[in-house]
Amino acid sequence: AEARRLAAWDGHERIVLGTDTGRGLRAIVAIHDSRLGPALGGTRVWPHPTLEAALTDALRLSRGMTYKAAIAGVPFGGGKAVIMADPARGKTPAMLDAYAEMLAQLQDSYVTAEDVGLTLADADYLKARTPNVVGTTAGGSGNPSPVTAHGVFLGLCAAVRHRLQRGDLSGLRVAVQGLGAVGGALCERLHAAGAELVVADIDPARTRAVATRLGARAADPQTVLSAAVDVAAPCALGAVLSRATIPALRAKVVAGAANNQLAERDDAAALRERGILYAPDFVLNAGGLINVAAELAPGGCDRAAVLERLATIPQVLSEIFRRAERTGRPTNRIAHAMAEERLRAAAPRTARRGA
Amino acid sequence: AEARRLAAWDGHERIVLGTDTGRGLRAIVAIHDSRLGPALGGTRVWPHPTLEAALTDALRLSRGMTYKAAIAGVPFGGGKAVIMADPARGKTPAMLDAYAEMLAQLQDSYVTAEDVGLTLADADYLKARTPNVVGTTAGGSGNPSPVTAHGVFLGLCAAVRHRLQRGDLSGLRVAVQGLGAVGGALCERLHAAGAELVVADIDPARTRAVATRLGARAADPQTVLSAAVDVAAPCALGAVLSRATIPALRAKVVAGAANNQLAERDDAAALRERGILYAPDFVLNAGGLINVAAELAPGGCDRAAVLERLATIPQVLSEIFRRAERTGRPTNRIAHAMAEERLRAAAPRTARRGA
Repeated sequence: AEARRLAAWDGHERIVLGTDTGRGLRAIVAIHDSRLGPALGGTRVWPHPTLEAALTDALRLSRGMTYKAAIAGVPFGGGKAVIMADPARGKTPAMLDAYAEMLAQLQDSYVTAEDVGLTLADADYLKARTPNVVGTTAGGSGNPSPVTAHGVFLGLCAAVRHRLQRGDLSGLRVAVQGLGAVGGALCERLHAAGAELVVADIDPARTRAVATRLGARAADPQTVLSAAVDVAAPCALGAVLSRATIPALRAKVVAGAANNQLAERDDAAALRERGILYAPDFVLNAGGLINVAAELAPGGCDRAAVLERLATIPQVLSEIFRRAERTGRPTNRIAHAMAEERLRAAAPRTARRGA
Repeated sequence: AEARRLAAWDGHERIVLGTDTGRGLRAIVAIHDSRLGPALGGTRVWPHPTLEAALTDALRLSRGMTYKAAIAGVPFGGGKAVIMADPARGKTPAMLDAYAEMLAQLQDSYVTAEDVGLTLADADYLKARTPNVVGTTAGGSGNPSPVTAHGVFLGLCAAVRHRLQRGDLSGLRVAVQGLGAVGGALCERLHAAGAELVVADIDPARTRAVATRLGARAADPQTVLSAAVDVAAPCALGAVLSRATIPALRAKVVAGAANNQLAERDDAAALRERGILYAPDFVLNAGGLINVAAELAPGGCDRAAVLERLATIPQVLSEIFRRAERTGRPTNRIAHAMAEERLRAAAPRTARRGA
């Protein structure tokens, strides 16, 4: 299967493998699709044991960024980079210099940002050496977590409106798994809107702190999503919605910030069969992308414009929910189809590039 | 083995995989080593059945260019490109446009030229769209075959001087396999220098024409190299020196223009054991590279400077022959070691790139 993926290059426009033995760099930049604009996507630093593993990771993430950008309506394509290194020991200045040169050679065909293993400080270091970096201190878009959380909150409200016919969250029971920067900020907003929270984090101290501050019930992170609530909000790990966990869910809505919540694509159909409305994660959590994309807009980052732009998240979700109802297809399939429509509607590559 | 090669990226600095589905492009640009300068190497158009086959081809050829440029003393590194297409039907203007854009994005890190499947007309087409193309009509270096032939001639003379202690070619018997642009021009020079020729080409008409014009003996292309001669000059296919053919050789010198004459690396040792002096092909046939490299010199192509530059071929060969004699190692190993020395002596990547 991996060989076939590679053989077809997984539909990518450009894959760049870069090595600088002297400076310890081994990196892959994957540019999946640039029909909507320059490829945008973070740089992951991870000690993959083989090139194949790193390449598979880069190609999968890059493709995901294409769909996320298309559905979020930002004028960017999908890309992603993977540096094969241990983030704790491999990020020497020499290695980052070599990577910055690799980025510089790509010019405006790829724009990068933080990701797992690449910190704000690393992004700042790269930005001082090449312009195609966003999400930096100097960029102006700042900490993206509150923006992502606000987008998730708006999307969750749209899902509640659609499935539960409720215009407000007063008394609504919501289970939140993961109380990090995004999950924690989401809890604050839900609490302010009158929701009753059940919260859990792998760090028990954090769980207690949030429970105390917001009057929430503390739960176990393993079982919190199957609590007796109206909405389950996964904001931590991926693959939490699976054949094993879906039958235990008691919520009528799943809407959270975590990436890749479905263990398998068909799990969305299983949710649908149980009458649970699933808000596709890559639609819901696009706030961070909308935020960094704003850095690249003419005139730079405008916080008011970003918040306005977040309104597209509930709008697009409502459209997805309506189409899913009309066609009987799972919401994630509808979301992918809508992204495809937008990609096809973009100026064809020949015309755009020839311009 | 292929997987291991890929896993190690075969020591390449940069490998770029490019696809443009709409315009029918699938291409690989391999940049092996740029310590001595920008990577220079032709673009091959070939309908490889798989990505792996195309990649293996590109990596092998790219690496070969690094050694060829290093030993020829031109300020360039090794690179090569492979377009996965049928040269007869796949080279549409749209595909070449897409490839020109891919080349343009690589800027001065890769310079290309003709190769199997990419004609002078194709190179001219690319050159009109991106500057990093040489060997074009407009470039000024013109048809490289006479230059390559002259380099092979000079190298052959050096080998004869070393092995046969002869300062002239008068009455020397030389078997030439392949009478194309390079082999034919070599025959003219050998004839003018007084050599007696045995010639063969897969095209019998061409064999007859050369034999008649130069008073040469016509032979069979399958057996010509084992004729009773002083020098065997393979100027057609690769892998003609093998465990099967070496025992039949009657020449004391092998010096020809063909690429990759040795079927296996160890065949050079077998030649040495039989007392046959082998002039490493990539040293001997570097004239074409010296010629296109001259296009990129400040001030453009200077034919007199190119001819002067060809004198390095017999100089380097004499040094290789002396070292081989002193150490008892095969000439091709010595040539590789000398190229490695030059690469190591170059400014380290960090310093050069940081400049």
